[in-house]
Amino acid sequence: MAVYTDISEDDLTRFLADYEAGTLLSYKGIAEGVENSNFLLHTTKGAFILTLYEKRVDPNDLPFFLGLMHHLADHGLNCPLPLSRRDGELLGELSGRPAAMISFLEGMWLRKPAAKHCREVGRALADMHLAGHGFALTRKNALSVDGWRPLWDKSAGRADEVEPGLQDEIAEELDYLESHWPKTLPHGVIHADLFPDNVFFIGDQLSGLIDFYFACNDAFAYDVAICLNAWCFEKDGSFNMTKGMALLDGYEQVRPLNGAELRSLPLLARGAALRFFLTRLYDWLTTPPGALVVKKDPLEYLRKLRFHRQVKSAEEYGLVHR
Amino acid sequence: MAVYTDISEDDLTRFLADYEAGTLLSYKGIAEGVENSNFLLHTTKGAFILTLYEKRVDPNDLPFFLGLMHHLADHGLNCPLPLSRRDGELLGELSGRPAAMISFLEGMWLRKPAAKHCREVGRALADMHLAGHGFALTRKNALSVDGWRPLWDKSAGRADEVEPGLQDEIAEELDYLESHWPKTLPHGVIHADLFPDNVFFIGDQLSGLIDFYFACNDAFAYDVAICLNAWCFEKDGSFNMTKGMALLDGYEQVRPLNGAELRSLPLLARGAALRFFLTRLYDWLTTPPGALVVKKDPLEYLRKLRFHRQVKSAEEYGLVHR
Repeated sequence: MAVYTDISEDDLTRFLADYEAGTLLSYKGIAEGVENSNFLLHTTKGAFILTLYEKRVDPNDLPFFLGLMHHLADHGLNCPLPLSRRDGELLGELSGRPAAMISFLEGMWLRKPAAKHCREVGRALADMHLAGHGFALTRKNALSVDGWRPLWDKSAGRADEVEPGLQDEIAEELDYLESHWPKTLPHGVIHADLFPDNVFFIGDQLSGLIDFYFACNDAFAYDVAICLNAWCFEKDGSFNMTKGMALLDGYEQVRPLNGAELRSLPLLARGAALRFFLTRLYDWLTTPPGALVVKKDPLEYLRKLRFHRQVKSAEEYGLVHR
Repeated sequence: MAVYTDISEDDLTRFLADYEAGTLLSYKGIAEGVENSNFLLHTTKGAFILTLYEKRVDPNDLPFFLGLMHHLADHGLNCPLPLSRRDGELLGELSGRPAAMISFLEGMWLRKPAAKHCREVGRALADMHLAGHGFALTRKNALSVDGWRPLWDKSAGRADEVEPGLQDEIAEELDYLESHWPKTLPHGVIHADLFPDNVFFIGDQLSGLIDFYFACNDAFAYDVAICLNAWCFEKDGSFNMTKGMALLDGYEQVRPLNGAELRSLPLLARGAALRFFLTRLYDWLTTPPGALVVKKDPLEYLRKLRFHRQVKSAEEYGLVHR
């Protein structure tokens, strides 16, 4: 749940004068996004999302994020489109914060996705990978292999509070991943956070992808590995191979994975599990009790990491050779 | 800010099957209402508010609240209209809570209302008092004079923590109000909580009233007194007589106040100030630090109470004899 910066109707009306977005009819703070304040606006021209970027987002990254959404929408991906101001800029300022007006994407995220939805997600992820081609800006993935050790160093000393033996296990894992991480896989712009709450459906039809605020340049297959973690495990911790098969098949219908990508998939999935484990562990250890944010259990990703460590090939995720 | 009960798309779709509200396109939890969980829905038939009634609302009161909104809208008041289910009921159940679908009212509440808006509020309040005529159900005002002493008894012992001397001052005030409270003023259905966040405007035009969850049967002039407290003081604590004049004049354009109502106004305004002081004091003393709710300062209403105690006649609020 987001912490809201309240905005007054006067300030908002002044802000909207820089856009051709119609006359304001209503605005409501909405409970989406942990990083930013989001409002759902109705105007005489339709519905929009107004996002105020709070301090956890680096303002220097905003041209990348907003420019990317514009580029992807221009290239046919279903995703929210940032509105240009009359002066051509995508970014304005409201209540002392960088702010953007973004088209409202209808759809709902699925609390209980099924295999058929995983197939749609695979397709949409590959669509995004292709649509990102030619986007002029780049952004390093701060949460890929180079970023894990500095993040781990902040939590390592207290890791055994979460589970005894964790400090040694993760140190060893990190050493292994750092020395084996592939450097030459096909790469481009990836979403890097395509969890179920960032994929909208209307009925069983995928209506679009949202929340590009972790997007960056990295290996495409790493994005696939993130989705295997995010979509293909059941609540009891078991991997659902039917979902894995659907996700990989959907992806390959649009963008086939090459041999190196397939061979790297178990390792990439370990890395992706470690990445979410590390950020959750850090939040777990540092979020004060009673804070507004729901703490996510880091152990969920420790269990996924241990699963991936046993996997020998992409076939075990459900890959079917086409 | 509300605490949300999350709902799944499946449950919501099943819930909506009982209404003729179109096909679901999106739903967002919104940051409005402290008592309930609210979602803004888009369907193929338009926008709706879905309210899940949380434990602070007595389910036995819901037929009164929803029936009243229906009655008021039927009688021409601009307010949200609860949708009837196919079986004729206004109330359904979702995620184990009583739940209602309500038409979405466009408009924004004013963070900085001016005198012209107070005039509109006065008019709309009187419109509501007239439109409520003939509504079949009744609900006692639990937060009128009979309810204050039990509420005060819960906080009295700690009142001096908030300001030294408060315990004696409020005890004396309560004695006075109990023995002088008028019993025979014109009465009917009142809103009882018509604060700025419950009145929507589009531009300077009032678009409607919302949040009838404190509505009850009581003296109309007590509702006017609540509005004088809620709308006509400045942030520095001073009473703005221009706003008072506008509010009373707007009200009297629709429903003139009789002599007894006018004579009682200072006393009713003291009572209204005490009512909000007491609930805020209780919340102030009992809300744990770090809770999701913003604590409102009870001293704001103590200062208003002291102001009203000096007022001798309705003219001091800006009343102009017509």
